[in-house]
Amino acid sequence: MSEKLCVFPGSFDPVTIGHLDLIERASRLYDEVVVAVLHNPAKQGRFTVEKRMELLAKACAHVPNVSFDHFEGLLVDYMNARNARVVLRGLRTARDFETECQMAQFNLQMAPGVETLFLAAKPEHTHISSSAVREIGMFGGDVSPYVPASIAQEVARLLKPQPKR
Amino acid sequence: MSEKLCVFPGSFDPVTIGHLDLIERASRLYDEVVVAVLHNPAKQGRFTVEKRMELLAKACAHVPNVSFDHFEGLLVDYMNARNARVVLRGLRTARDFETECQMAQFNLQMAPGVETLFLAAKPEHTHISSSAVREIGMFGGDVSPYVPASIAQEVARLLKPQPKR
Amino acid sequence: MSEKLCVFPGSFDPVTIGHLDLIERASRLYDEVVVAVLHNPAKQGRFTVEKRMELLAKACAHVPNVSFDHFEGLLVDYMNARNARVVLRGLRTARDFETECQMAQFNLQMAPGVETLFLAAKPEHTHISSSAVREIGMFGGDVSPYVPASIAQEVARLLKPQPKR
Amino acid sequence: MSEKLCVFPGSFDPVTIGHLDLIERASRLYDEVVVAVLHNPAKQGRFTVEKRMELLAKACAHVPNVSFDHFEGLLVDYMNARNARVVLRGLRTARDFETECQMAQFNLQMAPGVETLFLAAKPEHTHISSSAVREIGMFGGDVSPYVPASIAQEVARLLKPQPKR
Amino acid sequence: MSEKLCVFPGSFDPVTIGHLDLIERASRLYDEVVVAVLHNPAKQGRFTVEKRMELLAKACAHVPNVSFDHFEGLLVDYMNARNARVVLRGLRTARDFETECQMAQFNLQMAPGVETLFLAAKPEHTHISSSAVREIGMFGGDVSPYVPASIAQEVARLLKPQPKR
Amino acid sequence: MSEKLCVFPGSFDPVTIGHLDLIERASRLYDEVVVAVLHNPAKQGRFTVEKRMELLAKACAHVPNVSFDHFEGLLVDYMNARNARVVLRGLRTARDFETECQMAQFNLQMAPGVETLFLAAKPEHTHISSSAVREIGMFGGDVSPYVPASIAQEVARLLKPQPKR
Repeated sequence: MSEKLCVFPGSFDPVTIGHLDLIERASRLYDEVVVAVLHNPAKQGRFTVEKRMELLAKACAHVPNVSFDHFEGLLVDYMNARNARVVLRGLRTARDFETECQMAQFNLQMAPGVETLFLAAKPEHTHISSSAVREIGMFGGDVSPYVPASIAQEVARLLKPQPKR
Repeated sequence: MSEKLCVFPGSFDPVTIGHLDLIERASRLYDEVVVAVLHNPAKQGRFTVEKRMELLAKACAHVPNVSFDHFEGLLVDYMNARNARVVLRGLRTARDFETECQMAQFNLQMAPGVETLFLAAKPEHTHISSSAVREIGMFGGDVSPYVPASIAQEVARLLKPQPKR
Repeated sequence: MSEKLCVFPGSFDPVTIGHLDLIERASRLYDEVVVAVLHNPAKQGRFTVEKRMELLAKACAHVPNVSFDHFEGLLVDYMNARNARVVLRGLRTARDFETECQMAQFNLQMAPGVETLFLAAKPEHTHISSSAVREIGMFGGDVSPYVPASIAQEVARLLKPQPKR
Repeated sequence: MSEKLCVFPGSFDPVTIGHLDLIERASRLYDEVVVAVLHNPAKQGRFTVEKRMELLAKACAHVPNVSFDHFEGLLVDYMNARNARVVLRGLRTARDFETECQMAQFNLQMAPGVETLFLAAKPEHTHISSSAVREIGMFGGDVSPYVPASIAQEVARLLKPQPKR
Repeated sequence: MSEKLCVFPGSFDPVTIGHLDLIERASRLYDEVVVAVLHNPAKQGRFTVEKRMELLAKACAHVPNVSFDHFEGLLVDYMNARNARVVLRGLRTARDFETECQMAQFNLQMAPGVETLFLAAKPEHTHISSSAVREIGMFGGDVSPYVPASIAQEVARLLKPQPKR
Repeated sequence: MSEKLCVFPGSFDPVTIGHLDLIERASRLYDEVVVAVLHNPAKQGRFTVEKRMELLAKACAHVPNVSFDHFEGLLVDYMNARNARVVLRGLRTARDFETECQMAQFNLQMAPGVETLFLAAKPEHTHISSSAVREIGMFGGDVSPYVPASIAQEVARLLKPQPKR
């Protein structure tokens, strides 16, 4: 297994500037970063997995050593399939921490070589989340401060509620 | 700056099995791990910095790619002096997280290339701390479940209260 | 925009004695208090927005400078429409705080003049929530310690499960 | 009301080794332990209440003074029906605490003699939950480290996704 | 070891109405309650251990099955000396919980039969602490809402700052 | 008592850009803002109360409706002396919240008209504190991103460690 490759898993529904900052920072720490979109069949996302990957690719066009993938099921199975051992996750709040910490502990027990490394979000990003972006956009608010500039218009358009009939 | 070297700073007053587990895990993720004992002139430790480094060296004798150092002052200055960019820290509880997160955010602002990566403590280590070890030892309790086996006797002996007069 | 008017938004599904205490305290701090029921089309409440407003009006009959309204969509749009700049919210627990803080930070960014001011719930109200009232009432428990006296009977009657068939 | 009997309520969907540890510890503190499965008609469990009780009984076959029951509605009504005054609950994280604390405070107000006593989970169990077991099992991961040995195979088989078609 | 006896350890510097409520509740759950004042030689209290015990005895004069003691060193040693296995502690906030939980986990590991049972403070007591009482009293504020009526005057008098010279 | 005046109490040892932002925001919500430096005789500050007030005055020179004061003892006594009823405080983290909430609850009980209103710190300020500024400055780090520009040089100079002998 390689410790030069890191996998950054998540829903990215859609990618935010907080995610992008973490991806950029990861790209300076690892030779290769794989952003892996979790496809959860039990929980319909707002965007399709394909659209999320497309938005990620546009947002990260300037990051040389990043690639995109999607997976379903357990993260540890995906990690083994990729021969990867480093999971990277961002932390924003104490609440995030408890959930993330439990997942990292499970993953380490299920696949002893698989380590989760956490990066603290920058202070100015700690309140930003995909769900906040979806809610602001759904009600016609301005999402552009929260999503990468290269995809802001598209995300706004896709989230905007359609006029009824 | 090298991303193959990580610095694991702390007080290690004394090193616990929680610390040792993190050092071992770090040694599998990085080519070189520097355990750096913080010498805080304003806060007298229970053990001298020299003794803490000696205990660390004994506890980590089986870890090939680890070395020991000490520093005073700002961590970012030490990181620059070592030409290192990865700080590694463990997280145990939500309370840890808030303090650690703020330090990581400051360090990233003060030295933009310096990233702090966090590892979640193993569940069975989440309650263990140097201060708990000191308190248990000071009152004659058994510290051996909480410090590495190779130093347990010495730590117990050093912590044991001296008979008065 | 007026800083003499405050808007107290919420679901109020139904109003509790915790809410009433905050409204009374707000009425002594601002010339005019607008209690604004959020109508969330994506999340069916237990009571209709009309019934929630009716219960609020009964519960607050003794508060001279309060009025009631409802809104849909972003709070900042409602604030602008009302020419208001002060949002008032109660805080009960550390968990409340993280959610509320993020919303306040978003609202301040989306509408720079719109400030959210938080009041700490009284200690004896920190465990009370509309959802707890609904659950207690649904199973035939006594909700009267938790909702204003003037509406306790009506709330109990409306929450009581109907005999099947 | 008897203080020699304790009721350990929960969903147990399914029972984990964390639950079993708490039941064993409770059995040494009280003459009689009643494990009471909450049947929540509004929230479909993964296992039926009957199956959850069956799994509990198998897992606790070695505990002499434990019995199993199920209930619907308010815990305080069940406590009164059983003439019991001690509720026992486990605590794992700070987040657990806020929710549990509020329920205990409500129950004490609704039935003044009914006290909730909390036991801290062992450190090595703090990350384990029924929902994590369900998710791991659903994706074919190994649940055996997290459920009692006597039911591990059955739980794994029941959680395993059925081949489609 | 007896599970009919519980030990309620603490600093009680001085006893508050929150402590008294917990002692009263404990006295209804256990045949015998021992309130044990921790004497920490490293941390000078505001009241002597003797005065703290005297204030406790006055405050609890109406509780039949309670006695008072003091101890120094590890709680588990005291528990063994008393042949007791149940420690009782109150919980007020999420912050309390982390500290208390770690101590309970250590105590269970150091003395496997010694269990810590937690009671949630009543909502109206969650903000009350000995340190708040000391600070309010030191600046001449009214401590009577926070300490038992039978000792309020004495506590106020003892905390009041002496006129200088 | 006037609800047009707010008191912003704190240690301000020294004032940070987080404090300044809150003062500016308060100045737009209240006719008059009094920044009140707490003089705690039991806890020596890094700067004298006089110097802290001088630094505050320089930092807030552009804020028309703010004045500066200092007090010792209970905040509620100071509020009564000023005939003020609104305390303003900032909140940064969940940990802040618990402490602040308890103080607000005490103050409301001790002086029923005195309300504490909380403002959430801006995301980019949530990690900034006077103690972090002191520590960074003491070790020769750059404090200028964290203190108002008008006082940055002076604060840096005053915090800088003196060459020994």
